[in-house]
Amino acid sequence: MKEKGLLIVLSGPSGVGKGTVRKEIFSQPDTAFEYSISMTTRKPRQGEVDGVDYFFKSREEFETLIEQDKLLEYAEFVGNYYGTPVDYVKQTLNEGKDVFLEIEVQGAKQVREKFPDGLFIFLVPPSLSELKNRIVTRGTETEDIINNRLSAAKEEIEMMKLYDYVVENDQVENACDRINAIVVAEHCRRTRVEPRYLKMLEAE
Amino acid sequence: MKEKGLLIVLSGPSGVGKGTVRKEIFSQPDTAFEYSISMTTRKPRQGEVDGVDYFFKSREEFETLIEQDKLLEYAEFVGNYYGTPVDYVKQTLNEGKDVFLEIEVQGAKQVREKFPDGLFIFLVPPSLSELKNRIVTRGTETEDIINNRLSAAKEEIEMMKLYDYVVENDQVENACDRINAIVVAEHCRRTRVEPRYLKMLEAE
Repeated sequence: MKEKGLLIVLSGPSGVGKGTVRKEIFSQPDTAFEYSISMTTRKPRQGEVDGVDYFFKSREEFETLIEQDKLLEYAEFVGNYYGTPVDYVKQTLNEGKDVFLEIEVQGAKQVREKFPDGLFIFLVPPSLSELKNRIVTRGTETEDIINNRLSAAKEEIEMMKLYDYVVENDQVENACDRINAIVVAEHCRRTRVEPRYLKMLEAE
Repeated sequence: MKEKGLLIVLSGPSGVGKGTVRKEIFSQPDTAFEYSISMTTRKPRQGEVDGVDYFFKSREEFETLIEQDKLLEYAEFVGNYYGTPVDYVKQTLNEGKDVFLEIEVQGAKQVREKFPDGLFIFLVPPSLSELKNRIVTRGTETEDIINNRLSAAKEEIEMMKLYDYVVENDQVENACDRINAIVVAEHCRRTRVEPRYLKMLEAE
């Protein structure tokens, strides 16, 4: 019997650096999990590539996929849709591979309902004031957008209770080390591995 | 408010290599936890040092400590007592340091009752037959002792359900890596860190 892979969900407040952490993890040569590329209706930022960073879709295309139930989760955030195509995730888990999602908190909540056994990791800034600095110094947004994001971030930190783990993004490398450790640990969780060992005992 | 340290309990079947794994972990220069040295009434093996590997005590001395309630846990195993002095553990946890215990399964059960929040790790061999080889090739025991140990090991593997994590001791270095990852992960567990972050949110 082949064991199913682990669904790893990385989420956290807007501006905390989820994308940077995810990119760093997947730049490591020994990363053992598969990245599920999200879909979005937001415009690509400088340097973002369709099919690598996101699948960029029109609002109309996205809403058709919602109707066809082809999304594991989706959320509207600051006026844009973000979502996860479901087929790739299910197929890859069934192959015994771990799948890594980097998604917004609204979407993570939906995934939790569908995959209660998933591994839910909440990325947080060292402090809220540091979060503010990060959003401001991105330097491409109006003050209204910044204030909206800050307010959303406060609400999202209160959503922490839906997660299994909280990882502080003090430095990208540290955050990645913690996430990798969490995945290793989770593969050792007794409730996940017990069936295999009980079988071993019977075979003796 | 200073956070209390984490109580890390490593246990597993006799002969699985708990002591070797523990020694390897504490030989690593960046190990961040404190080792709680056990007490035992068994005779020192070749190379074992009193106060380093164990506190070696007479049966009479040990039973006096039991009466005085000075042991966090104790167990009798293959005719000898093994136990953990309680004062050192409580004091070190209160200082915010992680304490590492390497104990027999009978003792781990007692610690679980007193410290339900502890981090309980069960070390297992890749297979029971490999366990047999390890016990036999130690080469210093009679067949009766070997059979007793094997039978005990089977029972102990069934005790896995009392633990949070199961770590396979396929290679000492791998087992140590997994244990270190589990400790890192456990420090990120939401239920452990949530109070700190809720406080941060209030301070904003």
